[in-house]
Amino acid sequence: MAVVVTNTPRLPEATVEQFGKLGVATVHEALGRKGLMASYMRPIYRPAHISGCAVTCEVAPGDNWMIHVAVEQCRPGDVLVVSPTSPWKGGYFGDLLAESLMARGVRGLIIDAGVRDIATLTEMGFPVWSRAVCAQGTVKETIASVNVPAVCAGALVNPGDLIVADDDGVVVVPRLQAAATLDQALTREANEAGKRERLARGELGLDIYQMRERLAAKGLTYVEYESWREQKG
Amino acid sequence: MAVVVTNTPRLPEATVEQFGKLGVATVHEALGRKGLMASYMRPIYRPAHISGCAVTCEVAPGDNWMIHVAVEQCRPGDVLVVSPTSPWKGGYFGDLLAESLMARGVRGLIIDAGVRDIATLTEMGFPVWSRAVCAQGTVKETIASVNVPAVCAGALVNPGDLIVADDDGVVVVPRLQAAATLDQALTREANEAGKRERLARGELGLDIYQMRERLAAKGLTYVEYESWREQKG
Amino acid sequence: MAVVVTNTPRLPEATVEQFGKLGVATVHEALGRKGLMASYMRPIYRPAHISGCAVTCEVAPGDNWMIHVAVEQCRPGDVLVVSPTSPWKGGYFGDLLAESLMARGVRGLIIDAGVRDIATLTEMGFPVWSRAVCAQGTVKETIASVNVPAVCAGALVNPGDLIVADDDGVVVVPRLQAAATLDQALTREANEAGKRERLARGELGLDIYQMRERLAAKGLTYVEYESWREQKG
Amino acid sequence: MAVVVTNTPRLPEATVEQFGKLGVATVHEALGRKGLMASYMRPIYRPAHISGCAVTCEVAPGDNWMIHVAVEQCRPGDVLVVSPTSPWKGGYFGDLLAESLMARGVRGLIIDAGVRDIATLTEMGFPVWSRAVCAQGTVKETIASVNVPAVCAGALVNPGDLIVADDDGVVVVPRLQAAATLDQALTREANEAGKRERLARGELGLDIYQMRERLAAKGLTYVEYESWREQKG
Amino acid sequence: MAVVVTNTPRLPEATVEQFGKLGVATVHEALGRKGLMASYMRPIYRPAHISGCAVTCEVAPGDNWMIHVAVEQCRPGDVLVVSPTSPWKGGYFGDLLAESLMARGVRGLIIDAGVRDIATLTEMGFPVWSRAVCAQGTVKETIASVNVPAVCAGALVNPGDLIVADDDGVVVVPRLQAAATLDQALTREANEAGKRERLARGELGLDIYQMRERLAAKGLTYVEYESWREQKG
Amino acid sequence: MAVVVTNTPRLPEATVEQFGKLGVATVHEALGRKGLMASYMRPIYRPAHISGCAVTCEVAPGDNWMIHVAVEQCRPGDVLVVSPTSPWKGGYFGDLLAESLMARGVRGLIIDAGVRDIATLTEMGFPVWSRAVCAQGTVKETIASVNVPAVCAGALVNPGDLIVADDDGVVVVPRLQAAATLDQALTREANEAGKRERLARGELGLDIYQMRERLAAKGLTYVEYESWREQKG
Repeated sequence: MAVVVTNTPRLPEATVEQFGKLGVATVHEALGRKGLMASYMRPIYRPAHISGCAVTCEVAPGDNWMIHVAVEQCRPGDVLVVSPTSPWKGGYFGDLLAESLMARGVRGLIIDAGVRDIATLTEMGFPVWSRAVCAQGTVKETIASVNVPAVCAGALVNPGDLIVADDDGVVVVPRLQAAATLDQALTREANEAGKRERLARGELGLDIYQMRERLAAKGLTYVEYESWREQKG
Repeated sequence: MAVVVTNTPRLPEATVEQFGKLGVATVHEALGRKGLMASYMRPIYRPAHISGCAVTCEVAPGDNWMIHVAVEQCRPGDVLVVSPTSPWKGGYFGDLLAESLMARGVRGLIIDAGVRDIATLTEMGFPVWSRAVCAQGTVKETIASVNVPAVCAGALVNPGDLIVADDDGVVVVPRLQAAATLDQALTREANEAGKRERLARGELGLDIYQMRERLAAKGLTYVEYESWREQKG
Repeated sequence: MAVVVTNTPRLPEATVEQFGKLGVATVHEALGRKGLMASYMRPIYRPAHISGCAVTCEVAPGDNWMIHVAVEQCRPGDVLVVSPTSPWKGGYFGDLLAESLMARGVRGLIIDAGVRDIATLTEMGFPVWSRAVCAQGTVKETIASVNVPAVCAGALVNPGDLIVADDDGVVVVPRLQAAATLDQALTREANEAGKRERLARGELGLDIYQMRERLAAKGLTYVEYESWREQKG
Repeated sequence: MAVVVTNTPRLPEATVEQFGKLGVATVHEALGRKGLMASYMRPIYRPAHISGCAVTCEVAPGDNWMIHVAVEQCRPGDVLVVSPTSPWKGGYFGDLLAESLMARGVRGLIIDAGVRDIATLTEMGFPVWSRAVCAQGTVKETIASVNVPAVCAGALVNPGDLIVADDDGVVVVPRLQAAATLDQALTREANEAGKRERLARGELGLDIYQMRERLAAKGLTYVEYESWREQKG
Repeated sequence: MAVVVTNTPRLPEATVEQFGKLGVATVHEALGRKGLMASYMRPIYRPAHISGCAVTCEVAPGDNWMIHVAVEQCRPGDVLVVSPTSPWKGGYFGDLLAESLMARGVRGLIIDAGVRDIATLTEMGFPVWSRAVCAQGTVKETIASVNVPAVCAGALVNPGDLIVADDDGVVVVPRLQAAATLDQALTREANEAGKRERLARGELGLDIYQMRERLAAKGLTYVEYESWREQKG
Repeated sequence: MAVVVTNTPRLPEATVEQFGKLGVATVHEALGRKGLMASYMRPIYRPAHISGCAVTCEVAPGDNWMIHVAVEQCRPGDVLVVSPTSPWKGGYFGDLLAESLMARGVRGLIIDAGVRDIATLTEMGFPVWSRAVCAQGTVKETIASVNVPAVCAGALVNPGDLIVADDDGVVVVPRLQAAATLDQALTREANEAGKRERLARGELGLDIYQMRERLAAKGLTYVEYESWREQKG
């Protein structure tokens, strides 16, 4: 039943580029607090920051055969997203596969499993977000599907969805919501720039965001240390 | 019942500065092997090394409202210590709050939860020790207390306690024990400097610390590899 | 029953040197996919890459006394391998012991537990692969054995076995299998170099490794995105 | 953007009943080794064994409001599947909600988070598979969606999919593949019954499954202990 | 600096008894969602339900000497709370110590570490909530304090505080807040009883708690499955 | 290089039987605090208590072929010990294999991985100590060795070593140390019986073990609660 779906849709290059300047935290908020992968997904080197369209790739546990198949489906600007069909944290991916993906213009790898050759990958500047680093390799015995909907680190990824990854983690934006999410995110960013300056000058968030009244309404009280100590008896 | 305790006591600046030259391992020994936070508390960049007086801040799980309140209670030389009232590892803290803390002279953040915007925090040189990195943000709905005794990563922290944090972890020194602990720690340091030189010249710890007799008394025996192999049959 | 076995055998220096140019992943494959330590063993700084002959050292949980004993058994080109007899993740090892090991020409430390003073160890350039970083120190009360067979991070290590460690992890090669493993590994490396070039030029692994036929035989099918969507209904 | 999808399709009752006699391991094999939830999903009491059609329910972290909404969408024979939109392991579900679900004929709960009141749930005989047990409750502030595709413990669940859960774990069968999977699973079961009898009589799997030749072909050799010891030297 | 504090205050027996009928979840809510120990604290057998006044006991890692000291400080109706000063999950407690505690009328043990002899403890009916089960024993070398404030599984415990533990976990009620918390908790319980009956009869929480309006105000919409599918395109 | 070693030595039946009456904690102490498997090894049902001679069985990750081979090497009174050559927590073992092992008089299974069909295994009364429960099955593609030295859950097991497993965990006694360990363990047991009675009568361990003097010598002091509170200021 394994299938390779070809010519999956992508987002316009301009959209992808703009997302590449936005942080994962901002995109996640803009999307309505959805689509974040589990926080165990960490970059192999820092800083690292990419955006791109997902090519999804299932692999059998301990078997990286389908990554070779997925390479051919990748185009410039893509991000490869690999999920084992059951958890195994060995090293499915190393420098040779990275060489091949770079030759095709792929921006990075997201893998809910282990990766190896990380010293070489770091030298090559090929970014990977993974669950583990592990020298153990795989076999090539079992087929699975490429470009079907996949669950990666707890998030649902459809082929062509937008992936943004940075030092904070990885977020998935459904393809059809990308444009709207981009607008939201840009607005947020603009908004924050001004606030940041005021905070740097020493203004308090309590005042900028007008929180004092609402805190008081909720019942927050202030008490001097000495009186507080006496109260505690 | 949420309360913000104000004007909590601090330690003299000179004491705090001297602790800033001591490693966490040394301070922990000097304090009698107490006060160490759990080893899952890791710095977002390395090397990093700070000392300062604790401002404690409770937060509800998934809610960072009280961090905004705590900022106002911070003074130059302080370290902000944040504990969720129940575990949730999302990102309570990012670059905007860091900007605000830096504007007030705060030396760093200790948070028993997640942090985000770590690429920016690293650029800014604002050190954070946290349990996780996570892009997911929080809401601002629930109040909690500032500058009450708090449990952070398994350690009890009272406002005004001394915090020392470096690449090895985070230790809490109760305010009233700071002076005595400092004396102990300085003595340890002086002691070690001489030993280090001797070890670098090739002298053995076995001889420097006079361990041979005590080891023999405990029954440690030496045997040549070839005889040992025969014995094992 | 604690014993220190002395004058354990080592491998020829030339063999050890050659392994030092090979990655852990390659060596692990060449050995027949055995001997890898658990992937929680991580280097304290990166990149790091060593090879050497194992001196094994048991320690009681929370007690580093035997490391002092083991130092004396170390020779230039050795790697010290430390295993607690029951799990405890505190910091058994710090800069003073590293000074002593460096004075004896030891190449690095592998420890299935915690390490401390990592900022100093990094400055010194003394590499350590450990399970944890922890400022908490140990006592010196209980004896154990040096240079007896030990289990470290799930792998069996005999004194004199070859250790290779890099950014991907740590592998143990039994002493008597080192020569054969080296041959295998060198062949693998030579083999890969040519492939890497072809992949960099854009050739596909599917073609280089002649996978297409075998994939088709297993039943892998290709389908256009639009037809696939219609099928799913 | 939160939506409650109503009148989602279900499978015929007869199909659901038949799955209720099959173990999760059998169903998972029959489905082609897919759809298994992470093995951290454990039943609160044992033995427990259910089958039913999924009603999916997203919840915000630390907020169980939508479970109250989902109850109304449940029908006799359903299984409620709850996923937080970001991980938080508190107790979203207790005895009052169980009372309500039992009144509607729901067979059990699958929750990728914590549950509480487990002593009472056990007495009531309402089975739950969860990631954790935790006394901490939730708030009711944030809406989310019911009966949209959800990721639960690493598996994708669509409303109306078949859920089978027993002491070994939880598996999801896509609704449209349920009939074919049932056939496969029943065949497997029949097949195993005969084998079990032969194994109980002392026949070896090596002979029943005719493995000896294939093992020899792969190079497996047998050697007496005494000769093996000599070889090892 | 180790000290044993004697004749610490307790709560009235009647108060303790009444808490013994309340679940941990209820008490935790009544206390304002504080004081819950980490959810890794699990009972060695189920069901189990106790309440009592805390005697706190620090132990050095891998050393249970102070538990022997703490036994003498226990009185009928107490609960012993044991915390290692640094984490080590071995078995600090077994059947002999349980015999001794039962002889003194102690109701159970809360230990942020391992326990052993659990088959015998289960037979004896002596309940324990622990972080782990581990056969490994301890030494008796290092002193620590009894009846000083302690951090146990993330919660602060003062001697004389009220402990409630059941199948859901463990909660700590500060001694001076016990009376007020009891009132709150009893009110909650009474409140729930009526609701439970209505839910069992099939009334919906949506109606009982009058949630429909508030959900609509937040923007929750209902859509038929068939129209929803069309929308998704 | 895979080999099946046949006719490995066993211990006399009488020795094995006597160990069957001893707890794992006692045996572990008697052996000098060695040989304990990691505490994540838990029985699938409780109570359970076995002793027997180890047949060791390596398996490739996700592949249970060699268990079928190992069955033939088992004799009445044996315990099968299974270790994956790299970690994978799926279900390598189920009811059919248990049927086969029971037919050969095997006492139980120790597996550093997952097991399935636990409801049936419980009914059959076939005890298993495992790292996980998981419905996911395995393939039969890769050979490995039977009855060679193996690392299981952190402990080294040689074929013919004695295994004792109970509700507290699993311990391995090297074959040649079994007789001496048994003597030690029986002495311990006899010793404890008398103490238990005295403790049950209310005598304190402090007196039975004559600890008071040694505690005082270490500097332990007793202070009344009221004076202690004043001191703390």
